[in-house]
Amino acid sequence: MASPSAARFLDLVSAKRSFLLSGHENPDGDCVGAQVALWHLLAALGKDVSILNPDPLARQFDFLLAHTRFESFRRDRALPAAEVLVLLDCAELGRLGALGEVLRGRPGTIAVIDHHIGSERGDGDVAFVDSGAPATGALVYELYRELRLPLSPPAAEGVFLSLVSDTGWFRYSNTDARVLSLAAELVAAGVDASALYDRLNRRNHRDSVELLVAGLGRHGFSLDNRLAHVCLDKNLMERAARTGFDTDAILDPLRSVDGVEVVALLKERADGAVKLSLRAKADVDVQAIAAAFGGGGHRKAAGATLSGPLDVALRAVEDRVREALAAE
Amino acid sequence: MASPSAARFLDLVSAKRSFLLSGHENPDGDCVGAQVALWHLLAALGKDVSILNPDPLARQFDFLLAHTRFESFRRDRALPAAEVLVLLDCAELGRLGALGEVLRGRPGTIAVIDHHIGSERGDGDVAFVDSGAPATGALVYELYRELRLPLSPPAAEGVFLSLVSDTGWFRYSNTDARVLSLAAELVAAGVDASALYDRLNRRNHRDSVELLVAGLGRHGFSLDNRLAHVCLDKNLMERAARTGFDTDAILDPLRSVDGVEVVALLKERADGAVKLSLRAKADVDVQAIAAAFGGGGHRKAAGATLSGPLDVALRAVEDRVREALAAE
Repeated sequence: MASPSAARFLDLVSAKRSFLLSGHENPDGDCVGAQVALWHLLAALGKDVSILNPDPLARQFDFLLAHTRFESFRRDRALPAAEVLVLLDCAELGRLGALGEVLRGRPGTIAVIDHHIGSERGDGDVAFVDSGAPATGALVYELYRELRLPLSPPAAEGVFLSLVSDTGWFRYSNTDARVLSLAAELVAAGVDASALYDRLNRRNHRDSVELLVAGLGRHGFSLDNRLAHVCLDKNLMERAARTGFDTDAILDPLRSVDGVEVVALLKERADGAVKLSLRAKADVDVQAIAAAFGGGGHRKAAGATLSGPLDVALRAVEDRVREALAAE
Repeated sequence: MASPSAARFLDLVSAKRSFLLSGHENPDGDCVGAQVALWHLLAALGKDVSILNPDPLARQFDFLLAHTRFESFRRDRALPAAEVLVLLDCAELGRLGALGEVLRGRPGTIAVIDHHIGSERGDGDVAFVDSGAPATGALVYELYRELRLPLSPPAAEGVFLSLVSDTGWFRYSNTDARVLSLAAELVAAGVDASALYDRLNRRNHRDSVELLVAGLGRHGFSLDNRLAHVCLDKNLMERAARTGFDTDAILDPLRSVDGVEVVALLKERADGAVKLSLRAKADVDVQAIAAAFGGGGHRKAAGATLSGPLDVALRAVEDRVREALAAE
């Protein structure tokens, strides 16, 4: 049986003819995977559908272009006309940067498909939201099931990309029997899991090894080894940007150290401010720490922007993490 | 319906009362996971069963001790008496080191449960072998299914450990719909996938970060970037041994570089010889390369021992890899 919110979304699909799919800035694997799956669903139903994101598709995801067309916002181009705007993996036009500003004034219905807590209260006139879902793509999969529509290989690839993006390739605590069983079904529908892993993770620039060495070389432990931290200065961040190096790769070896409860990555921006990323390994609420610096996120992954220089920012982070660990 | 070889193994189980489970030297996750699952199956059937391996259980797997007893070979202790010796994840007593020599002379039946090619022709009087199975643990799971025996949470954990060990946590090309569907069933039977991942991978010594930096710092590319290599000298290998650092961690960032087809890890031993590990990313048969040095393995992962010093060994490896790439 359709959940009430899925049914309302499907009613909207029946009633309308043209759809514009969008999502948050720097769209991640869950966002673009869900867009792929929904694009193919609407196309199969004979609808007019296009995808327009605030930012271009990351190189990591370029294999999706083999079967799905992605466009990104440019001020000098007219927006596609559509009766319905569907926001995937977010619920507010404010998450769409400049594109959100342009879309805000337009007539038409806004629909939201999302799995974040509170997204029922976003900008959607119709909201298909389930915060218990492991990924937004899993909600699009529900639509296929409701419609008894078979997943084409591209649609299955989209849902699979969503699923592996938001479960950390089946490693995070949201990996339950339902997730693995859905993954099995998607592989049966044509997804090559291993090839997809390689496309997503095995196309790094050769300088990425040097950058990992340089970045990890700046690590330190404090608070009795409970905090692991890395500070990346401007110079290193520029090198990372040039080669498309994902600085998150530095976090994993630190997270793997016994006794570490929080990992902090501090990145110096060109303007001297410091971007902080926090990851909790144990049961520490890093969202609360990030919030103290005016940032936000989830319990286990959060971020904020601090004033520089790096060493001063690091001391401020240490103080907050010390407090959080003491309060445990 | 039982495959003929599973049926023969189950006939043996019915006919006998006492079982000794063993496996290859330095038992890996597939080997010990399959042992756990089979131990609980035989115990549930009221059999006498014990596990005796050539080497102690690696620290990584110590969580299994919460529900399963592992012993390792010591010359000064009597071997447990048993009517049947079961070899898991290997098929020859020669793979058991000194323990194999001692076991060779003993009376009784030898059974083999394994998924390696050719294991039908090993030392087993009864061989339950399926080279299409993703892991030896998946074969033990087949026995539960044949017997219509529910998997206890420890047995499910054992099969899951086998499965993730030999599929690279669902990333290798043997990850098919059957593997993911079995994983879903095991999680439904009580396995906490995320907690298991952390137990296996997130308890490193803090010096492991320094060792990763030092090891990766010795990387190089050759043959137009198609070969990535790392040479670890005696000194670094001693530091790695002291902290239990898994030098394989160095391979992954190299394997992730675009264009790399073969990764070679060369480790200098205390006696000056060089241990070579090869990993193929693309369709290069590294087993053939290893075989040229008197070693062996699989198409995508193989190893051999070469004479030192390191730089001479590296040049020999480069020559062989160049030939293999040219022959493609």
